[in-house]
Amino acid sequence: MFNTAVVLTRRVVLVTYLALALVAPARAQTDPLPSWNEGATKTAVVDFVARVTREGGADFVPAEERIATFDNDGTLWSEQPMYFQAAFAMDRLKAMAADHPEWKDRPAFKAVLDGDPAALAALGEKGILQIIAATHSGMTVSTFDRTVRDWIRTAPHPRFDRPYNELVYQPMLELLTYLRANGFKTFIVSGGGVEFMRAWAPDSYGIPPEQIVGSSGKAEFRLDGDQASLVKLPEIEFIDDGAGKPVGINHVIGRRPVFAAGNSDGDLQMLQWTTLNSGPRFGMIVHHTDDAREWAYDRSSPVGRLDKALEEAPRYSWTVVDMKADWKVVFPFEKK
Amino acid sequence: MFNTAVVLTRRVVLVTYLALALVAPARAQTDPLPSWNEGATKTAVVDFVARVTREGGADFVPAEERIATFDNDGTLWSEQPMYFQAAFAMDRLKAMAADHPEWKDRPAFKAVLDGDPAALAALGEKGILQIIAATHSGMTVSTFDRTVRDWIRTAPHPRFDRPYNELVYQPMLELLTYLRANGFKTFIVSGGGVEFMRAWAPDSYGIPPEQIVGSSGKAEFRLDGDQASLVKLPEIEFIDDGAGKPVGINHVIGRRPVFAAGNSDGDLQMLQWTTLNSGPRFGMIVHHTDDAREWAYDRSSPVGRLDKALEEAPRYSWTVVDMKADWKVVFPFEKK
Repeated sequence: MFNTAVVLTRRVVLVTYLALALVAPARAQTDPLPSWNEGATKTAVVDFVARVTREGGADFVPAEERIATFDNDGTLWSEQPMYFQAAFAMDRLKAMAADHPEWKDRPAFKAVLDGDPAALAALGEKGILQIIAATHSGMTVSTFDRTVRDWIRTAPHPRFDRPYNELVYQPMLELLTYLRANGFKTFIVSGGGVEFMRAWAPDSYGIPPEQIVGSSGKAEFRLDGDQASLVKLPEIEFIDDGAGKPVGINHVIGRRPVFAAGNSDGDLQMLQWTTLNSGPRFGMIVHHTDDAREWAYDRSSPVGRLDKALEEAPRYSWTVVDMKADWKVVFPFEKK
Repeated sequence: MFNTAVVLTRRVVLVTYLALALVAPARAQTDPLPSWNEGATKTAVVDFVARVTREGGADFVPAEERIATFDNDGTLWSEQPMYFQAAFAMDRLKAMAADHPEWKDRPAFKAVLDGDPAALAALGEKGILQIIAATHSGMTVSTFDRTVRDWIRTAPHPRFDRPYNELVYQPMLELLTYLRANGFKTFIVSGGGVEFMRAWAPDSYGIPPEQIVGSSGKAEFRLDGDQASLVKLPEIEFIDDGAGKPVGINHVIGRRPVFAAGNSDGDLQMLQWTTLNSGPRFGMIVHHTDDAREWAYDRSSPVGRLDKALEEAPRYSWTVVDMKADWKVVFPFEKK
């Protein structure tokens, strides 16, 4: 009888142990950042996350304050040979041109329709902004959303011959997931158009529409019978770039981030706003150093220029990611 | 031996049952809306929530799309005898007046400093906006935040002689909690200043800063040595009221709500934008009908005017809450 009791008690212990093993949160024994090479960069990230999540530790940050903001172009996906939203705008311009014979008389529009990138480049940023205004207005927000979804599914990137949203960075996807698993709320804070991003970024990054901050045009509410719509107007509402990024963060998020990642001088002020604060803070710059797998550019690049922010990085203790050295793979499709 | 095994097996079953009872989500047997009287209003809310959360049902809405937006003034807390933010602005005007002798020459400012509400009223909304601009700018966002926190802790409401944030509506607090327990993400979408609300609303409503949408002034990023700050400027950035509410929702949230609650004509377009859409939608109007416990006002009130939205309610099938009939208590302090 004693023996039976012992056996049964053991069985109870075993069953309880197994039940607890199923119920208890799995301890991650696997590397949460498998596409990051071992080294100072990866260690800095992992150490930071360990410090801010250690309850009772000196650097503990409550979960609700773990706000992480990520630039998009050049930080979460590629931005060469031109911002992908500019490629979208040019494709739209060509698609819409038949209905707009007057566009032939506007230099920027003509440059695109004639396939003359040099003429467009000579017009500078103003030309691109005119094209974006014309192709991003005059329709409802839901029609625009559908147009972006169709484009991202079908238009091929000129170098990689793949849909643009396949050019997201595998190591950054892992970083987003890793931060969220540690209680961070991840946001995009981009100079790109907020409605352009919302059409594909939630699926690509696991970041919901309400956690995407970006540039925007004005919109107008219209009621036609029992049809309510929001129509996009050709006027700029807000440019979420440079010194506009802290303003956009304050306006939409209302908290100062503890983690920020960028790749260009357009992210300088977001990084300053994030890291020039008391308590533990992390600033990350993605430095494009890999011409073979992606692109190599910084100080003299017309797109994604990284000059002052790179120069200031040591002074502010920002972590500079060397894409070539730190990343095992760049894009998800390399793993296949 | 057999008996011992049976006893032990029973014990295993009992322990397992108790363990599961602890682990399994508690079935709410208690009324989640105890401050709402039984009746058509409460039934409409409960039925709607049941329909959109029933997996496989015709009206099921995935959790990530369960966006609920709430006006603040007059919907979640009181707004009489004047918007509470206007009371804050006037208190600030008096506190700051010693440093601004020139204010004596401005009619709206003089009216407040002389304690002459009739003179201020004669100046209309313009006077209040001037006072808000002057008292809500020229400091950093963090200084402004501290000022609001101090005020809300100490300033007494003239009728109830309590801090203003005790004048939140108990039934609406229950509704917010009930919706969140059913997978909804609750947002404030208010004509009030977003930074004014963020200083106290998270504690009062359980809604985090990043889920508060409101009117805003412009701000400017400044770097002074290693000191980064955002300074509030005396210029309006966005008015989140009337036709501005759908625009603000689209800009910040990026999804069309399935549930919206308001109390005035300033909420008309938010209610239209929410409910004039396919699928299950809920529009709620809080009608102030209780002069004894709160206030009774609608069509002719200068603050919180409810005219067109009340007239349109039946046509759009919006649920009109009769505060007097539908609410057992109005304020949390009545329960004590």
